[in-house]
Amino acid sequence: MSDGKEMRRPGGRSARVRAAVHQATLELLEERRWEEISIPLVAERAGVHQATLYRRWGTMPALLDDVVDEWSSTTAALPDTGTLRGDLEVYAAAVAAPLQDSLVPLILRAVVLEIRPGEPRTPSRAFRERERQLQAMLDRARDRGEQVPTLAELLEVVVAPLYFYALFSVPLPAADAGRLVDRLLGLVGQKA
Amino acid sequence: MSDGKEMRRPGGRSARVRAAVHQATLELLEERRWEEISIPLVAERAGVHQATLYRRWGTMPALLDDVVDEWSSTTAALPDTGTLRGDLEVYAAAVAAPLQDSLVPLILRAVVLEIRPGEPRTPSRAFRERERQLQAMLDRARDRGEQVPTLAELLEVVVAPLYFYALFSVPLPAADAGRLVDRLLGLVGQKA
Repeated sequence: MSDGKEMRRPGGRSARVRAAVHQATLELLEERRWEEISIPLVAERAGVHQATLYRRWGTMPALLDDVVDEWSSTTAALPDTGTLRGDLEVYAAAVAAPLQDSLVPLILRAVVLEIRPGEPRTPSRAFRERERQLQAMLDRARDRGEQVPTLAELLEVVVAPLYFYALFSVPLPAADAGRLVDRLLGLVGQKA
Repeated sequence: MSDGKEMRRPGGRSARVRAAVHQATLELLEERRWEEISIPLVAERAGVHQATLYRRWGTMPALLDDVVDEWSSTTAALPDTGTLRGDLEVYAAAVAAPLQDSLVPLILRAVVLEIRPGEPRTPSRAFRERERQLQAMLDRARDRGEQVPTLAELLEVVVAPLYFYALFSVPLPAADAGRLVDRLLGLVGQKA
């Protein structure tokens, strides 16, 4: 804010730069091999000075972290519909739906790419945050008196297949995501 | 074979070079960020001339392809025990067990890294080959008169969680992999 060039609506400008840089990063992740993507290339695509990117993010891995954070906290925010089935169906459809335009595979690739060498046994930060959100979804349902599966069951029966199809195969049609929810709720005796 | 320098046991030397280069690649995948790994670095670690690597593999992505191929066809070959439960338990334990020394996460990272930009809707070559092998396992069981799940059920209930834990979380203990097999066979009414 002390920088004269950024005096006019610094928050707005900052947010616009971040959005442009994130969009450019996702586009390049879709078009190019990871080893070809660099700060200068992202800067060019986003129409932002390289120096701004180096000052704000420093490295491509740090920029990827920020893209994944933003996605986890906004686009992929978990629903609160009033029933566990409703929450799960909205969540599963949301993960499956953007697959049509490849955002989820790109984010998952970014999470895989940001795995820290030398820390192979540590769950990624993005994964731990998502676990925390899913546990909160289950806790709300239990507090309402619903029969709920364990977090491990939710991860294995619903989340893992969605991510698996996104990463290794063709995306699962959103309509099929409901089948995974039925399978999970069948484990705890909830009727379909 | 017409090359005088490789006249003595050319197959043996070739196989030794390939093994050394694959091992060096896997070590570097574990230690370094992907963008730091290069043909010269692999050559140095493997104790092989750079020129040999460039001539034989050309690029890092081509070398990664070869590492994944080798792993799929040997280390991760599917069992044929005489029952579907036996096949699945050996397979699940084999995928989970090497997690202890990080080979599976490294291979999965390599598969993710080799995904071809511009072909986001195409299952990876390694994935299609693994699907073919798993379908053959199910076909053998059906030919013996066993009740078998569909390939989609096998992928969703057993394979996806194993890969999910390997990529995003801490590895699943091999003993827990049997729980996934029980869940799958429960779907088709096989007793545990």
